[in-house]
Amino acid sequence: MAFSKNTRKQTIENLKHTDLDLLIVGGGITGAGVAIQAAASGVKTGLIEMQDFAEGTSSRSTKLVHGGIRYLKTFDVGVVADTVKERAVVQGIAPHIPRPFPMLMPIYDEPGSTFDMFSVKIAMNLYDQLADVEGSQYANYTVTKDEVLQREPHIEATGLQGGGVYLDYVNNDARLVIENIKEADELGAEVASHVQATGVIYNEAGQVAGLHAKDLLTGEEFDIHAKLVINTTGPWSDKFKSLDGKENQAPTLRPTKGVHLVVDGSRLPVPQPTYMDTGLNDGRMFFVVPREGKTYFGTTDTDYTGDYKHPRVEQSDVDYLLKVINTRYPDAHITIDDIEASWAGLRPLIANNSSSDYNGGGANKGKVSDASFNALIKTVDDYEDKTATREDVERAISKLETAHAEAAGLTPSQVSRGSSLTRATDGMITLSGGKITDYRKMAAGALALIRRLLADKFHVETKEIDSKKLQVSGGHFDPTNAEATMKFYARIAADAGLPDADAKDLANRFGSNTGRVVTYLEGGAAPGLSLKETISLRYSVNEEMTLTPVDYLLRRTNAILFHAETLAALKQPVIDEMARLLGWDEDEKAIQLARLNAAIDESALAYLKKAATPAITH
Amino acid sequence: MAFSKNTRKQTIENLKHTDLDLLIVGGGITGAGVAIQAAASGVKTGLIEMQDFAEGTSSRSTKLVHGGIRYLKTFDVGVVADTVKERAVVQGIAPHIPRPFPMLMPIYDEPGSTFDMFSVKIAMNLYDQLADVEGSQYANYTVTKDEVLQREPHIEATGLQGGGVYLDYVNNDARLVIENIKEADELGAEVASHVQATGVIYNEAGQVAGLHAKDLLTGEEFDIHAKLVINTTGPWSDKFKSLDGKENQAPTLRPTKGVHLVVDGSRLPVPQPTYMDTGLNDGRMFFVVPREGKTYFGTTDTDYTGDYKHPRVEQSDVDYLLKVINTRYPDAHITIDDIEASWAGLRPLIANNSSSDYNGGGANKGKVSDASFNALIKTVDDYEDKTATREDVERAISKLETAHAEAAGLTPSQVSRGSSLTRATDGMITLSGGKITDYRKMAAGALALIRRLLADKFHVETKEIDSKKLQVSGGHFDPTNAEATMKFYARIAADAGLPDADAKDLANRFGSNTGRVVTYLEGGAAPGLSLKETISLRYSVNEEMTLTPVDYLLRRTNAILFHAETLAALKQPVIDEMARLLGWDEDEKAIQLARLNAAIDESALAYLKKAATPAITH
Repeated sequence: MAFSKNTRKQTIENLKHTDLDLLIVGGGITGAGVAIQAAASGVKTGLIEMQDFAEGTSSRSTKLVHGGIRYLKTFDVGVVADTVKERAVVQGIAPHIPRPFPMLMPIYDEPGSTFDMFSVKIAMNLYDQLADVEGSQYANYTVTKDEVLQREPHIEATGLQGGGVYLDYVNNDARLVIENIKEADELGAEVASHVQATGVIYNEAGQVAGLHAKDLLTGEEFDIHAKLVINTTGPWSDKFKSLDGKENQAPTLRPTKGVHLVVDGSRLPVPQPTYMDTGLNDGRMFFVVPREGKTYFGTTDTDYTGDYKHPRVEQSDVDYLLKVINTRYPDAHITIDDIEASWAGLRPLIANNSSSDYNGGGANKGKVSDASFNALIKTVDDYEDKTATREDVERAISKLETAHAEAAGLTPSQVSRGSSLTRATDGMITLSGGKITDYRKMAAGALALIRRLLADKFHVETKEIDSKKLQVSGGHFDPTNAEATMKFYARIAADAGLPDADAKDLANRFGSNTGRVVTYLEGGAAPGLSLKETISLRYSVNEEMTLTPVDYLLRRTNAILFHAETLAALKQPVIDEMARLLGWDEDEKAIQLARLNAAIDESALAYLKKAATPAITH
Repeated sequence: MAFSKNTRKQTIENLKHTDLDLLIVGGGITGAGVAIQAAASGVKTGLIEMQDFAEGTSSRSTKLVHGGIRYLKTFDVGVVADTVKERAVVQGIAPHIPRPFPMLMPIYDEPGSTFDMFSVKIAMNLYDQLADVEGSQYANYTVTKDEVLQREPHIEATGLQGGGVYLDYVNNDARLVIENIKEADELGAEVASHVQATGVIYNEAGQVAGLHAKDLLTGEEFDIHAKLVINTTGPWSDKFKSLDGKENQAPTLRPTKGVHLVVDGSRLPVPQPTYMDTGLNDGRMFFVVPREGKTYFGTTDTDYTGDYKHPRVEQSDVDYLLKVINTRYPDAHITIDDIEASWAGLRPLIANNSSSDYNGGGANKGKVSDASFNALIKTVDDYEDKTATREDVERAISKLETAHAEAAGLTPSQVSRGSSLTRATDGMITLSGGKITDYRKMAAGALALIRRLLADKFHVETKEIDSKKLQVSGGHFDPTNAEATMKFYARIAADAGLPDADAKDLANRFGSNTGRVVTYLEGGAAPGLSLKETISLRYSVNEEMTLTPVDYLLRRTNAILFHAETLAALKQPVIDEMARLLGWDEDEKAIQLARLNAAIDESALAYLKKAATPAITH
């Protein structure tokens, strides 16, 4: 279904002229999750995003659906249980995206170690029990020191005791967002990127009734009217809050920055995702993940007060990660010149969550018990599982509202799991915090409140849906048979004439849309592009709202991150084909090339390498 | 076997004239554990204690063999596994002392709570798995809020979510010490209480070769020669260290004080030991334990710098515990006037163990890895389980010694479990820290070093024993059939003419010695004493080195703690019978009465009550 620069004009018109039930501000994973569920519920939904979808934070995660085994160290079994359960749900609604890839956890005998060989086995058993994979092919096991060294010959041998291996999943964060967005669009939501909220519209009663907005592609300013507005702008929540000139009581965020660095796989060969203490006795752990021939490692986790729109990798981030990686892989001698790509992301940590840890830290921190959003989320979840009644949900919602009433509408509904749903006195709803794995559940909690408000205040009746069954675009197939089905989609592409490896890549990227993607073979390969790249780009421009080469090469695909060496040959043909599809003139092509080069340079850390090495030219 | 004031004279002579292999200073649980194992190994062993056995610290614990489920909160599974495993070992070697009594853990929904209903079930399952009681009659279960309130009608209902019930054991700390001491005596050790070490004897090579000592009952000073001296003085270790005029590198202790208060069971009825958060969000938990018709609760845990010999309950301790108990049992309205008895004890926490928690805190704190005493303890343990070889033990010992050599003999062998074994350059061995449950294991680790030193330096060959099978006095029976066997011993006392309840009490106190105790029926009851009290006292004076009424009423029995209301009637007859047995004159009897009154007053907190209530008279 078309979802492109061409359809965008009509979407903007619809946003101007429709009285929406719900306007979502922010097209990261949180907003995308609300949009798909709202649209499926029959809520007349709009969504605006000031950059590209997922551009701010949701494309900058560790790209794992990590079960959080380390939280067992603090016995946060609830967190781990919820995470592994929800991971299975996400795998069910987007079965082409999170893919199982067992994690190796090397164990060292050293001060401050998180686990020893005894406790890691106990932790993994508990983890398997919570994840319900005991006795399955994914059941954990331990390996000896020699076996760890066989798998990872460059890893530090001194102090190495052995390792644990347990189920974890790799993810594609940006594609999870776009597939939710595409499905929301398909379900009738009015979704537009590059539209900025510039102010809040109030009705006579002083209640939020929409937003002033600006189309950043055309400069046009316009109003969007909506019964309810929900702020899902992640790290921007605070900025957006000050925009309306009122204190709307959403929780203050204290974002932290996470940095990942990418090197060629030959420089740091690891056969599987690896997770371990840093070896610096700083209480932190880090990941080393193989992906598409590269290896990336991270993450830092530092307080961030800089530019929200462009968090950058700083020299100190690189210094720290190189110290960690060269401590654990002393033979590797990784330097900044080995870094082919990188990404830095902000994590929307809620400030009064005292832990510095994004994932929420201790189970009891920031808990507001009965009235919490957490209770609502759980009840909605139980309702979907048929273990709670509609009355239970109503009660949980009214408790949420009561809590607000008790504090004159001022109490932010703090939750222990690091996410928060608040409704200010002016009616502005804010859904913030949380981790990517929990997006479906957070959205379901918000939807319960939204549907109730629409019914009570606006007499708008909407449909009840089971969000656990609401599959995203590309994910419309049986998740219990994912591997076989993905092979089937690859076969479709191979039968259409693509080499097997390319066919597999396409299927992994587009899932059940693969058949749709191969329809773009008509006309053959674009000049300078492979068949695979041609049809992937054409589909993405026409049906994934790809508006720039960076959208395509960084978020619709991972080329800038994991195929840096191909970019020199790829970038001009991509721009030429996009120019053809979108009608760009030479001036526009030059602008797009400059922006693409800037993005590539930033990813390659050119600004940090310049000091030490000759400037990189394009 | 006679072990009394009368045998003591010969013991002192033997201490003077024997060239001992090993002299132990300190007759708490640590020294008692070393003594029994050393004597059983054929080591010529002496032990001196400056007060009564267990008087300093080992009679002042919480009187539980607590499995430490709360350590699962920090995923210290190794600590919990070791503790529950060792608890089973102690139950095997002293089956009449630790007795199973399932613990109730009420769960509140409140900030800072240790567990919620979900995580407590996971923790209890893990705990049962570690304790190997899954599927047994002692397997854990949860109870609802209503069931908690049925069991404990006075407990705070607000916020109460329910509770967990899991296996725990009650203990009798002072009797565990005396039974070890009695067995050591029986095995040939020369054991004397009220003998103080006054100085260290060195040989020409500057090595410790014994101690100058003083018999505090006679004032006589004498020397005791020994090839090896081990300091097991607990909180006194530092004091004893300064006594020899040299820095012997034993770890510095930072004792903390634990206080318990006793009220009548009717004032605070609980059907089973109860363990929960304080409700003050101070990160602490406390116990409420029913015992012999009373209920006691505690403990405080505060740094202590006062008099080591007489740690006292202070007003602030009482204030804190009353606040806690009245928070959790708001209907009880417990005041200081309800407190019938109390005890305060020092915990020999090793100072550079950064946790304030006696039980050792995080698994990795203060860890010195390979060379640690912990490794030695574990190897000895494995050796006894036949899963390690003699060579492994030798290696662990030599690692311990190597570690010392590496740091010029100066490195204290820190261990994560809170115990420490060091040997100074002058040869002085110090075994300190640790918790009461681990005494057998700590002693086994020390014995491995002692036997090796005797062999290498003095060509004294000793026997290898399995300390896990070395039963204490009173515990010589099949631990797998403890309840039936205890009934059998009660039957012996009942058959000898005691009322059933008294017979049961006696059996519980003396175990397999019950038959021996009833031989003291000859001559009938002493004036003013029941038959039970008469034979218990006579046995204890003749065979348990009971030297004063306080020894008897506070440590051989728990009368001062749990039967305060009986003391007025009991104390003069006890003194009279002891005078008859020990040949006291009226002056001595008056002195003993004054000391007993002082001990009773202190336990009853007379010095704190005086301000508010009329002075108590005797």
